[in-house]
Amino acid sequence: MSPQLYIAYCSNARRALLAGLAEFAILFTAFFPVSALAEAATATDPLPSWNDGATKQSIIDFVTRVTKEGGPDYVKPAERVATFDNDGTLWIEQPMYTQFAFAVDRVKATANQHPEWKTQEPFASILAGNLKGLAASGEKGMVEIMAATHSGMTTVDFNTTVKDWLATAKHPRFKVLYTDLVYQPMLELLDYLRANDFKPFIVSGGGVEFMRNFADQTYDIPPERVIGSSGVTQYQMWDASPVLVKQRKILFVDDGPGKPEGINHFIGRQPIFAFGNSDGDKEMLEWTAACQQLCFMGLVHHTDASREYAYDRNSDVGKLDKALDEATAKGWTVVDMKTDWKTIFPAAKTSP
Amino acid sequence: MSPQLYIAYCSNARRALLAGLAEFAILFTAFFPVSALAEAATATDPLPSWNDGATKQSIIDFVTRVTKEGGPDYVKPAERVATFDNDGTLWIEQPMYTQFAFAVDRVKATANQHPEWKTQEPFASILAGNLKGLAASGEKGMVEIMAATHSGMTTVDFNTTVKDWLATAKHPRFKVLYTDLVYQPMLELLDYLRANDFKPFIVSGGGVEFMRNFADQTYDIPPERVIGSSGVTQYQMWDASPVLVKQRKILFVDDGPGKPEGINHFIGRQPIFAFGNSDGDKEMLEWTAACQQLCFMGLVHHTDASREYAYDRNSDVGKLDKALDEATAKGWTVVDMKTDWKTIFPAAKTSP
Repeated sequence: MSPQLYIAYCSNARRALLAGLAEFAILFTAFFPVSALAEAATATDPLPSWNDGATKQSIIDFVTRVTKEGGPDYVKPAERVATFDNDGTLWIEQPMYTQFAFAVDRVKATANQHPEWKTQEPFASILAGNLKGLAASGEKGMVEIMAATHSGMTTVDFNTTVKDWLATAKHPRFKVLYTDLVYQPMLELLDYLRANDFKPFIVSGGGVEFMRNFADQTYDIPPERVIGSSGVTQYQMWDASPVLVKQRKILFVDDGPGKPEGINHFIGRQPIFAFGNSDGDKEMLEWTAACQQLCFMGLVHHTDASREYAYDRNSDVGKLDKALDEATAKGWTVVDMKTDWKTIFPAAKTSP
Repeated sequence: MSPQLYIAYCSNARRALLAGLAEFAILFTAFFPVSALAEAATATDPLPSWNDGATKQSIIDFVTRVTKEGGPDYVKPAERVATFDNDGTLWIEQPMYTQFAFAVDRVKATANQHPEWKTQEPFASILAGNLKGLAASGEKGMVEIMAATHSGMTTVDFNTTVKDWLATAKHPRFKVLYTDLVYQPMLELLDYLRANDFKPFIVSGGGVEFMRNFADQTYDIPPERVIGSSGVTQYQMWDASPVLVKQRKILFVDDGPGKPEGINHFIGRQPIFAFGNSDGDKEMLEWTAACQQLCFMGLVHHTDASREYAYDRNSDVGKLDKALDEATAKGWTVVDMKTDWKTIFPAAKTSP
């Protein structure tokens, strides 16, 4: 076997090894040059879109310490649970949450089936292009819009609608697909964690079924590792075939204290690594900080108005206030988007 | 490398390969004798505790077909979701559901903190050892007992209590730990599916937090792959530390139609393989049968009064009536415990 093939082969095999095959490890170390592999790994920067500095170093230090077998901070692969907020942490959330943009478009697309919407708020404002009227409807209006556009159909039909929308809808400022507006540095972080046998989960206030339609392809996070807010679904027989029909009733709100509650409900383990960007992530980060071993808590601070957006304490979308104070007080990692990230979005897809 | 070491090494590496590393596959097939591996695999019976016959063959045929790359029934590893009921499918459920035995023991153990229970049903009947009185309290009484013993504490304290109980409580007939009363043929089936890159999940009417305390060690199924009925938990701060406190309120009942609903809620994929043993699994099996490719639906029929129990249509615990008719009509696999299973429980742990 040529040296290149040999190293490529070993570095793939090493992942299987780290997954916990103890006997295999004994065989492996007896026959393969592990030290050479370790050198090869450190020679390549795992986070090339992150500028060197304290933020990047805090991530690498943490991963190095919890994966060092025999070290005081070692954590077994099975317990390397990493949780990520989605909106504003993995992809763009301004000028409005992407799922809400989807809901607004669905109101327009299905208005002909709802003649009553012409005079009924908040639908009338959407159909008239009256954003002030929509804003005036407040949280109650938002809930009404979400319920109307996220219920009454089967899960299969809903998924088709979301996939079709994601394949065509463009962001109002960047004029590209929403799935192109994911953060390149965070994609690298997900890859880096997976290469170190972490299990990344999404833990988002967004709708679980909405996110599962792109998380797999966009982030390489499979549906069963996506946690989010959810509505009740009901098992029914339609034409002698079983379907799940989405109901208006909310089952679970995965935001704020709902994040640790959701992590317990879906995963049943405490994370050792968590990343968010808003006050809705505060309790998830606190819950992670209460873990029994070395833990990592991170926040993305949106500070780059020219390449993305700059917002925090006074933003309606992704408000970051109390969590920023807590992160500062407790020494959690805070990403300064403007200085810590070399690039924001994947190359060749966007120009601000 | 000696031939034995070489084969051991390759067969471990093969699992990594099947996980989907395409480039690795090319390297691997160029340098390793895959045909020799295939022969070695078929030479070993993957289900040694299953008697040869139509039942065993239906499982092996299904797995062979969906894993044959390039074949008409091939399913990608990521989509090989397998769901298993727990009570009566993976472990014993007679003479009463194990979790209910735990709850009854908890009533006795905590009675001194609840003097009112001496005169309050259904607790009074439990404390007096009056099983008829307990039975008379019906479903309402059962719910009351479950709520009283599964709420008011933190998730951490609950987990400790369950682990302590499982380490000591004995089954009334077999006089061994409940975790010794798992079905050896089903353990082999779980291993066989995992070796073929399936992802086994538990989908049970039982409490998710109860099951997560033994599923990992007993079945090699990690907490995040255990789905079950669940109560609401509430995030609170106790002495400036975050805790999750179990509430009396039910969040989700994972039984009957709740099984496909729960599968959608937690996994977000339709299974291609499902195994149950009672009418509570009927909708999960129907939902699996509605999948878009080749699917497998199985039922364990308890027919062995001497080695375990014999029960079906008239049983209060694990009633199997409508699902048995549907399985027969639709040609699903029905395990006849008495004739299909060589052994019931893991060797050297139990004697009936």
